[in-house]
Amino acid sequence: MATSLEFWFDFASTYSHVGALRIEEECRAAGVLLVWKPFLLGPLFTAQQGIKDSPFNVQPVKGRYMWRDVERLCAKHDFPWRRPTVFPRNSILAARVACAGEGQPWLGDFIRGVFLANFAEDRDISDPSMLSKLLKGLGVDPEPVLERAVTAENKAKLRANTEQAEALGIFGAPNCVIGGELFFGQDRISDAIAWALADART
Amino acid sequence: MATSLEFWFDFASTYSHVGALRIEEECRAAGVLLVWKPFLLGPLFTAQQGIKDSPFNVQPVKGRYMWRDVERLCAKHDFPWRRPTVFPRNSILAARVACAGEGQPWLGDFIRGVFLANFAEDRDISDPSMLSKLLKGLGVDPEPVLERAVTAENKAKLRANTEQAEALGIFGAPNCVIGGELFFGQDRISDAIAWALADART
Repeated sequence: MATSLEFWFDFASTYSHVGALRIEEECRAAGVLLVWKPFLLGPLFTAQQGIKDSPFNVQPVKGRYMWRDVERLCAKHDFPWRRPTVFPRNSILAARVACAGEGQPWLGDFIRGVFLANFAEDRDISDPSMLSKLLKGLGVDPEPVLERAVTAENKAKLRANTEQAEALGIFGAPNCVIGGELFFGQDRISDAIAWALADART
Repeated sequence: MATSLEFWFDFASTYSHVGALRIEEECRAAGVLLVWKPFLLGPLFTAQQGIKDSPFNVQPVKGRYMWRDVERLCAKHDFPWRRPTVFPRNSILAARVACAGEGQPWLGDFIRGVFLANFAEDRDISDPSMLSKLLKGLGVDPEPVLERAVTAENKAKLRANTEQAEALGIFGAPNCVIGGELFFGQDRISDAIAWALADART
């Protein structure tokens, strides 16, 4: 049976940038169906660690390593990278747009566009006009999408994703999930794809 | 020029088990010189996070993931694994023996033996008689080694390693370090080896 891999990410997360830029291509090459799963890390950090900021800001030794490591990973994969002047950026509107775009053919390009805006162009991803221009550049009429993004129904969808992330045992980003099996970190994408393929054979 | 890779580990660390069992073989295959660097995570966790226990115990959501992940990683690499009944185990004596064995031909086998005792045989690695039997099994006279392990000079060596780990920006284990460049986590061993080889060409 064919199997699918869920990619759980937050637009504010640096390691999600490194994963998001390559996950679709890696899944396609392996013949695994990709399902984008936007969620918010903030509520999880607060619930699990009692913090209101990124752990990379709260624990400077981890932050220093992360900034160097992400720079190095982007160089390795030949991904654009510029350390943003604001971290973490507010990712809620962008995540709502990604929820509103579920199943749309432009979703992958939109997601990569938001990550590049945040982590290669140092732009404010919470700005509706930035997101609007990004959608327009993908040939999508932005108004109806941005309107749908802020409906009660769509806001509830993002909240439900975040609650499901917590139920799955997620505590960071990005993650790959295959039938409830959780792989944390961009460095485990190939393990996750191998798991998905093995899962499909059973 | 030939280059070397330092493997910084703590015998109490589950992910160090997964890294330690394969680092020597991977370095040998790549033609990179391996340098074992035992240190203690405990003082770093206390200094950096204000905790007196493993973060995997302090943050249960991370602990639950880690136990599942390590089991899965050991299955992938075909490494023996049994979840220990005590975690984290006191690793100070074993680390002192590893310091005392610096440069000895039996050091790699001793290190792997301690990890297997802790994470495959569920044995107390702080027990001198266990370490003594392990050394004897490797054809090493244990008495002089265990005596050297607890000299003031050798204790200072382990303390110096731990201080150097902190100075390198280490906050967990295992790590690969090449000329000050830090790679955290067993999942980054191949990146570290690639870095060491590139470093050797410059």
